[in-house]
Amino acid sequence: MDFETSVFDKEYISLAGTREGIVRGGRHLFGRLPQAFAGIGRIGVIGWGPQASAQAPNLRDSLSGTDIEVVVGLREGSASREAARAAGFREEEGTLGEMFEVIGSSDLVLLLISDAAQAALYEEIFAALRPGTTLGLSHGFLLGHLDQMGSTFPEGIDVVAVCPKGMGASVRALYLQGAETNGAGINASFAVHQDATGRATERALGWSVGLGAPFTFQTTLRSEYLSDLTGERSILLGGVHGIVESLYRRFRDQGLSETDAYRHSVDSVTGPISRTVSKDGLIGLYRRLDDPQKEVFAQAYAAAYPVGLELTHEIYDEVASGNEIRSVILAGQRLSRFPMGRIDQADMWRAGEVARQDRDQENLPLDAFTAGTFCGVMMGQVDTFIEKGHPYSEIANESVIEATDSLNPYMHARGVAFMVDNCSTTARLGSRKWAPRFDYLLTQTAYATVDHRPAALDTTLVKAFEEHPIHEVLRICAEMRPSVSIFVQ
Amino acid sequence: MDFETSVFDKEYISLAGTREGIVRGGRHLFGRLPQAFAGIGRIGVIGWGPQASAQAPNLRDSLSGTDIEVVVGLREGSASREAARAAGFREEEGTLGEMFEVIGSSDLVLLLISDAAQAALYEEIFAALRPGTTLGLSHGFLLGHLDQMGSTFPEGIDVVAVCPKGMGASVRALYLQGAETNGAGINASFAVHQDATGRATERALGWSVGLGAPFTFQTTLRSEYLSDLTGERSILLGGVHGIVESLYRRFRDQGLSETDAYRHSVDSVTGPISRTVSKDGLIGLYRRLDDPQKEVFAQAYAAAYPVGLELTHEIYDEVASGNEIRSVILAGQRLSRFPMGRIDQADMWRAGEVARQDRDQENLPLDAFTAGTFCGVMMGQVDTFIEKGHPYSEIANESVIEATDSLNPYMHARGVAFMVDNCSTTARLGSRKWAPRFDYLLTQTAYATVDHRPAALDTTLVKAFEEHPIHEVLRICAEMRPSVSIFVQ
Repeated sequence: MDFETSVFDKEYISLAGTREGIVRGGRHLFGRLPQAFAGIGRIGVIGWGPQASAQAPNLRDSLSGTDIEVVVGLREGSASREAARAAGFREEEGTLGEMFEVIGSSDLVLLLISDAAQAALYEEIFAALRPGTTLGLSHGFLLGHLDQMGSTFPEGIDVVAVCPKGMGASVRALYLQGAETNGAGINASFAVHQDATGRATERALGWSVGLGAPFTFQTTLRSEYLSDLTGERSILLGGVHGIVESLYRRFRDQGLSETDAYRHSVDSVTGPISRTVSKDGLIGLYRRLDDPQKEVFAQAYAAAYPVGLELTHEIYDEVASGNEIRSVILAGQRLSRFPMGRIDQADMWRAGEVARQDRDQENLPLDAFTAGTFCGVMMGQVDTFIEKGHPYSEIANESVIEATDSLNPYMHARGVAFMVDNCSTTARLGSRKWAPRFDYLLTQTAYATVDHRPAALDTTLVKAFEEHPIHEVLRICAEMRPSVSIFVQ
Repeated sequence: MDFETSVFDKEYISLAGTREGIVRGGRHLFGRLPQAFAGIGRIGVIGWGPQASAQAPNLRDSLSGTDIEVVVGLREGSASREAARAAGFREEEGTLGEMFEVIGSSDLVLLLISDAAQAALYEEIFAALRPGTTLGLSHGFLLGHLDQMGSTFPEGIDVVAVCPKGMGASVRALYLQGAETNGAGINASFAVHQDATGRATERALGWSVGLGAPFTFQTTLRSEYLSDLTGERSILLGGVHGIVESLYRRFRDQGLSETDAYRHSVDSVTGPISRTVSKDGLIGLYRRLDDPQKEVFAQAYAAAYPVGLELTHEIYDEVASGNEIRSVILAGQRLSRFPMGRIDQADMWRAGEVARQDRDQENLPLDAFTAGTFCGVMMGQVDTFIEKGHPYSEIANESVIEATDSLNPYMHARGVAFMVDNCSTTARLGSRKWAPRFDYLLTQTAYATVDHRPAALDTTLVKAFEEHPIHEVLRICAEMRPSVSIFVQ
């Protein structure tokens, strides 16, 4: 996998012995955007969800002073019209219009409506695209849906993706910070799926640089949706939810108070563990432990890693086979009759609400058993992605960095629902589906083995962890991290 | 839905205002089997799993003294060869052979190999069938698999199903009891999916009567696999597992000892609740409660019914879309690397093992909250099946009778793994997948509502329960129940 650009400066990084091409962003490059967008007079941003409402103003601001116009397209009667107007997109100025009109009149169409809407409307959308248009996506769900419908993108258009590694709110907030703070902005991956114009790569890179991405990595559309949907069902949302529920219960059964059980499970993962991993990597977390703690970590790790590996393989198969996408579509059809319930109403999260009220942020426990369990499941995902051939930059982002820098801070601030339900419907459904599986498998096999058959634990696993190439990858990725926290509350 | 038979005596029963045709069985009808099997010289029973090892000897014994030969077909090198020989099937007598040879030389082929083997081998099997053969299945999984492969059964053959409403061991044991006890035997449903010979109905009914079924109900192959796969994922296995895990935890949190929590959750469901429902129906269970208990039941029922309805709808959609069958096939491919773990190693089931040792069977608690939860989820399944148009005989069997008479007795005897892991691989995988979902949704929404927002409970639900047509259906079905316990330990 590689790419050519004459507009931007490609650099190579070496991750675990693999060379990956990247593009460094920055405001000083905004002057090159007209060249990257050669042939584009109008960029249509379709929708006003979290990504659209961040990307449209970012691109408009980056392109101010050029002839390239950024126009927002909404469906007739959209409830978001006022919000788009308040952000400066106006019918009377020609920068706000009906979605199909905008699609048909734009040269670059960023399709940022919900997954369910993409699945429902893609035929009409494809029909409205003119030949030579570049269709832009911010993740690969639509490709997954087309795959399972036995359909494809229309010929004669470009299909590219730019996928910011953070929530929409962060994409806008860090862009604004970037005006003053060097290196602020959200990293992104990009993919070229179809290149009808011969300009697809430059346009995708221009889009990413225009959004303010400090670094842009390469992937494919398929690799992106496989790792994205799998990651959020595994360690990013579903996995971590199942982990903390099972650990909380375990600590309660061991006699800890509600608050202490919350401190040693949720607070430990979302506080010191995530902060340490973010700063010093997974190996840095391990090195912070003293020898007796390292032994506890090793036991929990040896028990939890097989669970992470098994369930991430299962999830990956379900995503790759199209099952998971079909599931999301079917669930969408049931939502009006069976709306998603609240996931934070049981005793544990009520106790958490109390526990969060008097929390000494600097002295939260770094529980070694919790750390071993969390890292074990996380590494099960990392190794699944390696086995499936994903690029290391994607593996690090979708398994580790997004967890510690982007998502766990939400759970830290206001509990599990604030993390999960700030994500897409696809992610919220997936997390609800898989969290209980992690909980059960950890309880049935991992903890039961630690408690009753510790001799059966594979002690070589933590050795493999210590020597894992992911640590060097995380070290390099850390150097390319935005210079400010990407968590926006 | 109706059928014609000139060999057996069709009767009609009325279930909730719907007329269903049935056939009453009995040993006195074995003399009619040659007529039902007209044109059949050889019946090939393929495989030696629980159903095959029961059905082959039953049919052989029922047909003894006729010209119709029952032959067992096993794959080359099968580990079951000795068991089949021990049951009286022998190569030297021509009643034991290689499976494809048996398939190609039989006029009625009962394909009773595992779902995974059916999915892997169906093309070869279809190729081996001669035109005019009757292919018999004991559940509809293969149709589901063909549906999702975009394939169909070959033309020119009959495709029928006879689905005993009990495990293989019961099918054999009650047949043997039937020699002395009038009415012993396992009821079955039958379906005619393709009728190339014009004899498919008589052959299917002959098969069912020959197995010893006291009553044979009609269904379709598709209806059978939808209700079968859904039912085992919902109340029959996955649902009841999730219910008792969540209730045990709830009782522990309320301060009960491990043994008492087990008594009020598992023992209560598998003991007095199942026994009472089996004998007096769901309404009989409710009527046994005094007024304060009825109120507790009503609360739990109102909270649990929506969970049962929502999750059974989700499961039904997953089964009908082919997702669940694809999932089973994918899981089968992972099993050698990730074998299924044990589901009874966590503390609850260890406590259960102790609790079962000194159990006063006659004085187990009938816990009203547990009863309301169990009945609520069960009725969620009943109403889903009614909405989807299943015949009432099937609904009663797949939602209530199989639970209380066939499966829960296994959990009663030796815990959850003894129940789940005595079932097919398809069922074991499905139960592992869905049990945690029932647990989480009950905990997150049902119990949380009872504890914190009881005013939000829909009190009309228990009223609808009291007036539900299922009670009359269960009363009629109870009259057609085998006269002896179908649970074989």
